[in-house]
Amino acid sequence: MENFIFQNPVKLIMGKGMIARLAKEIPSDKRIMITFGGGSVKKNGVYDQVKEALKNHFTVEFWGIEPNPAIETLRKAIALGKEEKVDYLLAVGGGSVIDGTKLISAGILYDGDAWDLVLAGRPVTHTVPLATVLTLPATGSEMNNGAVISRRETKEKYPFYANYPIFSILDPEVTFTLPPHQVACGLADTFVHVMEQYMTTPGQSRIMDRWAEGILQTLVEIAPKIRENQHDYQLMADFMLSATMALNGFIAMGVSQDWATHMIGHEITALHGLTHGHTLAIVLPATLQVLHEEKGDKLLQYGERVWGITSGTREERIDEAICHTEEFFRSLGLTTRLHEENIGQDTILEIERRFNERGAKYGENGNVTGAVARRILETAL
Amino acid sequence: MENFIFQNPVKLIMGKGMIARLAKEIPSDKRIMITFGGGSVKKNGVYDQVKEALKNHFTVEFWGIEPNPAIETLRKAIALGKEEKVDYLLAVGGGSVIDGTKLISAGILYDGDAWDLVLAGRPVTHTVPLATVLTLPATGSEMNNGAVISRRETKEKYPFYANYPIFSILDPEVTFTLPPHQVACGLADTFVHVMEQYMTTPGQSRIMDRWAEGILQTLVEIAPKIRENQHDYQLMADFMLSATMALNGFIAMGVSQDWATHMIGHEITALHGLTHGHTLAIVLPATLQVLHEEKGDKLLQYGERVWGITSGTREERIDEAICHTEEFFRSLGLTTRLHEENIGQDTILEIERRFNERGAKYGENGNVTGAVARRILETAL
Repeated sequence: MENFIFQNPVKLIMGKGMIARLAKEIPSDKRIMITFGGGSVKKNGVYDQVKEALKNHFTVEFWGIEPNPAIETLRKAIALGKEEKVDYLLAVGGGSVIDGTKLISAGILYDGDAWDLVLAGRPVTHTVPLATVLTLPATGSEMNNGAVISRRETKEKYPFYANYPIFSILDPEVTFTLPPHQVACGLADTFVHVMEQYMTTPGQSRIMDRWAEGILQTLVEIAPKIRENQHDYQLMADFMLSATMALNGFIAMGVSQDWATHMIGHEITALHGLTHGHTLAIVLPATLQVLHEEKGDKLLQYGERVWGITSGTREERIDEAICHTEEFFRSLGLTTRLHEENIGQDTILEIERRFNERGAKYGENGNVTGAVARRILETAL
Repeated sequence: MENFIFQNPVKLIMGKGMIARLAKEIPSDKRIMITFGGGSVKKNGVYDQVKEALKNHFTVEFWGIEPNPAIETLRKAIALGKEEKVDYLLAVGGGSVIDGTKLISAGILYDGDAWDLVLAGRPVTHTVPLATVLTLPATGSEMNNGAVISRRETKEKYPFYANYPIFSILDPEVTFTLPPHQVACGLADTFVHVMEQYMTTPGQSRIMDRWAEGILQTLVEIAPKIRENQHDYQLMADFMLSATMALNGFIAMGVSQDWATHMIGHEITALHGLTHGHTLAIVLPATLQVLHEEKGDKLLQYGERVWGITSGTREERIDEAICHTEEFFRSLGLTTRLHEENIGQDTILEIERRFNERGAKYGENGNVTGAVARRILETAL
């Protein structure tokens, strides 16, 4: 086990009807800006619940934080926040709305252009308090301090770190009416978040391995059931909790992390707009294939514990584990090959070029360079 | 899944050499009282590491917080803390030292007798900041807000709740020289903490079940190895982390809890002084036996996932799961029957009397009354 420091202060408020608690959780003298994505929250009742809960608070609304939140949009929100002297932010939406609002929380207290904060690459701790009402289980942003911000004009997409949300409200009922493709991408995203923290050096921590495998086993068990019935409260609650637990640091204590799949996936989204979780479903099996020698021992453990693979040669078992992984994503209704999304060699070369330009050395062993990324993407063709 | 609110603000600082971080973590202007148990920290080097780290801080020491910390001792510590105008507490020890220091943290800011705070049964949030250096993995007190305080003169023992530690430092190396009996009790304590949150109503949360099972699987795997070699860093790190994760709320989200075994165990300790973890090893198998009908479905799941029991009738599988549990405790070198500790019918009747007197209704279904506690204890004879 590596030395580590862990702290996660987020107050998690989970269950039916919990949105009503907003009134208690946010001090009554706060000037709140509520941030939203598109209009789905007006159809599923979340907007009405939020407004009812905050009817005695000062609120101003900002609409239109898009998937892969863009600095171009967030600048407008920051301007509105400054103008209205906002001192509390409530993000109502999925990972994109929450991510975007993390940058807003820093940008409101910053005099320059908020894109500087993204490029600086340092965590920003001088922020306006932020809370969330989650509507789409996927990114884990509701219980961590990370975000990913895009810049449309240059097709760039970078990680950004701010403070943790003060609290996050998770009502599984709000997920009943999500588009099935979004649920599929959320399941894939959650799965890959776990893999990035688990599929690395073996033997670092038995307990962390078990917890990572526990999330994977849960996802494998619930995914087909969710595909059949998205209105089952218990299923959606387990999905929602799994997504949050997958990226709040709870399975990352004392173990090395990978994140190469994410870095490659971000580029595909930046260049083609493909949904984040979907890019991961395409990249991960290829990453495992290309790196199967160095990840071999862990792939064997994963194959046995998550997929029940106990017979065959070492190579056969590793292959089978990777096949099961790709099949899992396909069973969600996602494509898992670049050509199925009309993505080809030009994109691969551009990603290699970008990785080389920034001297990329991703993965737990720092060996996923531009050339390796190219091999991974060619494997995913 | 039941509705729940989760928040755990403790900063966990884990690894070799981390005690040196004390100097950074505690503001230099604080007046610190360091609390200790007996003298073992002077033999294993922990005392020297703590004093070296805090050589530029103001510190006063309080020694002698005993196992099952007694209000009689803690009153003296509170008096010293008031006299020295202490505004920061550092507990260096195991669960008893940390538990006792939680009451001290409340007592220093309270004008009356601190035993009032225990009897009041309400969480106390007006406290002096508290941090810990853990020396014995067992109780989980380093990452929760609970404590158990005893009163020698009346042989009483009650739970008490205060604020969470600000931070806790866990260096696995400090466990290398622990007496094997203490390690055995710590492993048993950790195991039963998980069972109290897991062995209840089935089907409440797949992910929480997996995480609870993950700790149990880890304990079953490491316990015999630890009995062979207590100086293996990786083993002791997994033990230490498992003990902390077993009682910090991470496996309790949205699920019902039992704690009947603990309530019975506390009485045995209060009456006979038996080590807490040891009492649990005696009581748990009997609790499972007496309540095997209502816990049957979960016992089957537990038997299969933790002990690999997949054949036999329902009753046979349940029996086997309970047998494995008792055998696990015996494999740690602990006795698992009351008569082995010379505890008999008089103690059983006294515990029944105490439960009846307070109208006890413990367990996740509120049906562990005095009469049921008596049946459990008679089963454990």
